[in-house]
Parts: sequence; C-alpha cells; structure tokens
Amino acid sequence: MTVPSLVIGIAGGTGAGKSTVSRKIAAGLAESVTHVPLDNYYEEDPTLSFEERRTVNYDHPSAFEWDLVADHLGALLSGRPIEMPQYDFGAHARTDERVTVEPTDVIVVEGLFALYDERLTEMQDLRVYVETDADVRILRRIRRDVGERGRDLEGVIEQYLSTVKPMHEQFVEPTKRRADLILPEGANSVAISLLQGMVDAEFEEGSRRWERTMARENDPEVALEYDVD
Amino acid sequence: MTVPSLVIGIAGGTGAGKSTVSRKIAAGLAESVTHVPLDNYYEEDPTLSFEERRTVNYDHPSAFEWDLVADHLGALLSGRPIEMPQYDFGAHARTDERVTVEPTDVIVVEGLFALYDERLTEMQDLRVYVETDADVRILRRIRRDVGERGRDLEGVIEQYLSTVKPMHEQFVEPTKRRADLILPEGANSVAISLLQGMVDAEFEEGSRRWERTMARENDPEVALEYDVD
Repeated sequence: MTVPSLVIGIAGGTGAGKSTVSRKIAAGLAESVTHVPLDNYYEEDPTLSFEERRTVNYDHPSAFEWDLVADHLGALLSGRPIEMPQYDFGAHARTDERVTVEPTDVIVVEGLFALYDERLTEMQDLRVYVETDADVRILRRIRRDVGERGRDLEGVIEQYLSTVKPMHEQFVEPTKRRADLILPEGANSVAISLLQGMVDAEFEEGSRRWERTMARENDPEVALEYDVD
Repeated sequence: MTVPSLVIGIAGGTGAGKSTVSRKIAAGLAESVTHVPLDNYYEEDPTLSFEERRTVNYDHPSAFEWDLVADHLGALLSGRPIEMPQYDFGAHARTDERVTVEPTDVIVVEGLFALYDERLTEMQDLRVYVETDADVRILRRIRRDVGERGRDLEGVIEQYLSTVKPMHEQFVEPTKRRADLILPEGANSVAISLLQGMVDAEFEEGSRRWERTMARENDPEVALEYDVD
C-alpha cells in the first residue's frame, strides 16, 4: 500500500496548458504519478435525455460530482485504490467502464476547477494555476475543435463567447487566488524543471523534502507585516 | 573562486514582498546566498543639486545604472568579487562606501526592475515575479512611510498616485511576462519551500539539479501546439 506524500492541484482555463504541465512534470520519472483528471467526474443524471444533456452548462462547477471527487481523493490519500469513472464527451454521459487507479507517491488533480472545491484544495500540498492569455487559449481551442474535430467555427466562437468565457471569468479565474504558484504562459521549461525536481525528490527513498502537514500562512494581518521593498 | 550555478531574479511592485521572498528562500541555509539589491544601483549624477535629485523619478527604469549592474552580475558569474555601491535614500545619492561582495553558488537579484533589463534576464536561470494586490501593496507602503518613517500621509498618497502607480503599470507590471514563476500574494509558505528546496540542492555537493545552460521554450508557434485541455 502506497500512501501518497504529495498532492498537486493544477487548474487553469481552457487551452491554458494544464494537461501539458501535468504530463511534463511526470515525464522522465521512473515511477508513475497518479492522475486524477476532473473531466472524468462530470455529474451523471440518467433521467436526462441526450438533448437535455446537450444543453447542460459543462463550464459551470455544478456540472461536476464533487462528492465523488472528494471521496476518491480521500481514498487515494489513505492508500486505497479507486474505481475512476470514464466520460464520453460525444454522448455527454459516463461510459459503463470504470478504471482501477492505485495511489502512488505523487497525485496530480487536474482540471478547470482543480482549485475550486475546498475539500480538494485542503487535500492539496501544492496548488498551481496555469495562466495563459485568453487569445492564445481560444486559438488552441479553435485548432482542436475546428482543426482536429471538424466542428463549425461559428459554433465554437458562439459557445466560447456565450458560455466558456463568462464561466471562466466567474468561476475559474477567481481560483487563481488559491494558488501557491502561478505558471505563466502554459508550460514554460524553467517552471516545469522546478516542479519535476520536486516530484522527483518525492520518489527518492529517504530524500523527501515535502511535508503534507506543512502550515500555510493565510493570516491576512500577518500578510501586511512583510517588509516593504 | 566560486562560480555561481544559479541566478534568481525577483521582481514585483512596491510592497509586493520581494525582500521577504529573497530573505526566506535563503533562510536556514548553511551557506549564504549573494544578494544583489537593485536599489544600490540608482544612477549617480554629481552635477545635480539636492533639490534636483529630489525631483528625479526614482520609479522609472532610467533612474538605474544598468551598465554597472550588468557588469557586476557578469563579474560575479565569472567568479570575481565586486565593489557594490551603497545608496543613501535620504540624500538621494551614493555613499562613499563600497562593499566587497563575493560570488556564492546562488545569486539573487532583487528589485522593482529585476526582470526589466535584458542583459540581466539573460543571466538569470529563474525569473520570479512576486504578485500582490495593489491595495495590499499601498497599505504596506503607508505603514512603512507614515507609520515607521513619520512621513505625511497626503504626501505618500500623492506620490503613489502621481508616480509610483503609473510607473508600476507602465514598467514593472509588464515584466511579469518574462517571469518563469509568479508567486501570488507575497511570501506564501508553499512556494517558498519549493524555492528553498531548489536553492538548497545547489549547495549540496554533487546534487545540483540545475543547468545554467538550460534551453528555454520561447517559440510562440510551439506555444500554440500544447494540448488543449
């Protein structure tokens, strides 16, 4: 049984580069990192028809089954495996498949809302927000949705302006305040190296630098006491 | 002769917590870090009277002697000591004193404009921008200038609105784009631990994780190729 020693949350807007950051900080490690992509935890409501499911606002935090995510992360932190749901974006529903995921030393929770739910952020040792300009993010989304998935450009633009952008500004962007680190402009190599070094150290026997019980300085009065420079 | 292996630049607005971050990442290390505070490098013009020096805009990057900073940082990186000027803020002039500063493994360049001059940023391995809300920053400045130094509140407010704030927005804040990491809300303990671990490793014989020649990913076309998430 492995009890994880480091939980990293990685949040950011659509196209910010969250999965690239997640993949890169785990790349080149001898052991694997446990990935928890929040996209697998869209709420399931079997009473809804396909047409109704199509109109759900998937960019709103209420679209996620937070209780299940919190349960699963808690289980992994206790060293227990989970049965992770899988999501079919075409059908807007979970598949029948479940994937058994075992905890490892390092867990990465990744998604638009990785820093949204307090139960999750309390279990995270390092909270990262990937910050990328909105124009670069929408261009990446257009490349994916129009270029790779053959969707209609006007439809992508309309969805972005009517839903993705306002939900980002209302719910995703404010979670930046909970971040310990902001990574600018997607996956920059220097920041990635720093995080890789940190993750690497967690796997090395006897060289762990990280303490899950680390105290955070959240006192706003203390915050004002820093030196002025 | 010590040839430094890691140069960290720490920038951010007035009251952001730059010196706290600098001090904390060096705290608890057995060996000392070489500090290069840019405040010591205000340009000196002996032809100006005290009254003229009082009206200089010290929040503008042209107030600094960049050639000297670049020379000094270059010398430290070659393993040579420097004679660092000292600045008297009351007299708006350098003192006659010079302090001999020897290079160590880790150099920290700190100041409003630590990420401003390209010669400096090219010599930095890790570029950090300390991001703190403007209201918290001005409150810290008021505490220092009014509370500790007995200055007139209206004068502090007037200087802030007429000079400090516009210069920040025009010259300091844009350097955030050159940062590898943004530290939110001053000196948060998790980010500091991460940087401490990195600095610590530089001092451990044979365990250096850092390569000064590390390639940076700056190609904007490459940037768009990241996974959309």
